[in-house]
Amino acid sequence: MFQIETCFSPALFQYYDSNNSVVIIIDVLRATTSICTAFDSGVKELIPVSTIEEAYEYKKRGYIVAAERDGQKLDFADFGNSPFYFTPENVKDKTIVYNTTNGTQTIKMTGNAKLSLIASFINLQAIVNFLLEKPDNTLLFCSGWKNKFNLEDTLCAGAIAQQLLNSGKYTTQCDSTYAAIDLWNIAKDNILKYTEKASHRHRLKKLILDDVLEYCFTLNITNVIPYFKDNKILRM
Amino acid sequence: MFQIETCFSPALFQYYDSNNSVVIIIDVLRATTSICTAFDSGVKELIPVSTIEEAYEYKKRGYIVAAERDGQKLDFADFGNSPFYFTPENVKDKTIVYNTTNGTQTIKMTGNAKLSLIASFINLQAIVNFLLEKPDNTLLFCSGWKNKFNLEDTLCAGAIAQQLLNSGKYTTQCDSTYAAIDLWNIAKDNILKYTEKASHRHRLKKLILDDVLEYCFTLNITNVIPYFKDNKILRM
Repeated sequence: MFQIETCFSPALFQYYDSNNSVVIIIDVLRATTSICTAFDSGVKELIPVSTIEEAYEYKKRGYIVAAERDGQKLDFADFGNSPFYFTPENVKDKTIVYNTTNGTQTIKMTGNAKLSLIASFINLQAIVNFLLEKPDNTLLFCSGWKNKFNLEDTLCAGAIAQQLLNSGKYTTQCDSTYAAIDLWNIAKDNILKYTEKASHRHRLKKLILDDVLEYCFTLNITNVIPYFKDNKILRM
Repeated sequence: MFQIETCFSPALFQYYDSNNSVVIIIDVLRATTSICTAFDSGVKELIPVSTIEEAYEYKKRGYIVAAERDGQKLDFADFGNSPFYFTPENVKDKTIVYNTTNGTQTIKMTGNAKLSLIASFINLQAIVNFLLEKPDNTLLFCSGWKNKFNLEDTLCAGAIAQQLLNSGKYTTQCDSTYAAIDLWNIAKDNILKYTEKASHRHRLKKLILDDVLEYCFTLNITNVIPYFKDNKILRM
């Protein structure tokens, strides 16, 4: 039996044994949803960077840069963090440098994991199927928001954990995982309605980004499994 | 309207504005339950200390010391962290130095809070009534377990938050608070059964401390409101 654990914040990541686990990175609004969209649109690779400065340096060297802070595109960037920017016209066969408020830092923390996969609602079943075909100790890593717990990433973790437990190949002794599963089971029949109370959803709404919410909470739009290795995100 | 926030781990405490909040410290298994029991039994004051060394220094100077690590009484201590030690015979009118694996460090982190109160299921209604009579921005601070999220503290936070929201004097925009309330509403009809899956409960069970669980999950045994100020815990 393989173990499932769930980490609710980047600030708690150090307390988990990520070196011996498959780490599943979740940032539903919007980094991991956008990354899955980019690979579904045929992007060649993404280079996640931690700081605005780094993103700007790449821009000066001629790279295409997607970068945002607090939901808004940075001036020098080619586009922001909405998955709707990551169309085949914009990204097919290209290398894109990527920097967000929250998600890209989370991704870079997983550099020493056994394997580091990018998950969202839109590629949920692909991630679950991979973990069922190649079962291993799994850490569901929620990006949260500025180191605080958030609902939407927790629901996605709960949805994955529920299927892994149901398979009989996995077990858990992790309170965060139990909480995520219980919250998912409350929310699953109407995720959009449940997350009306989510704080990050309110932040995006203020920025008139509400159109993206329905997309981010739609299950299984794509089968891509992006992974992070050697400072790049590639498609499996 | 006053704000409710919920912090799931000492490692996340720095991300909340505790200086301008009433902080409610929760460590159901077992520090805050034991502290409430001690004041219900007439203890004069508790001196929480962070390290075993400090506790031992106090012991050498003649103090009564309650101290444990991972659920077990330390050799030099007069007693451990079970609330059942904190009887009137053992503690009435006495000063007791107190050191636990998790809870005492959490308490000492709240030294700069506007006000720092000790909560558990056994004094839940007393804490709620205080917060309704003197409403203020409130941070529900769960001790967790070694910096990880735990279920039992989260349920207690959810039980408090639900009553505060119901009063109409409080509101929240905090995802952790919504999660805590939803978990509480799943668990409230049978807390003991719900927490069968809780990891810390399993740890205590291994130590044959199961008798304490029913007590720790019983609501409203006492009306004491212990508070932490100037490195001491006193009764309001």
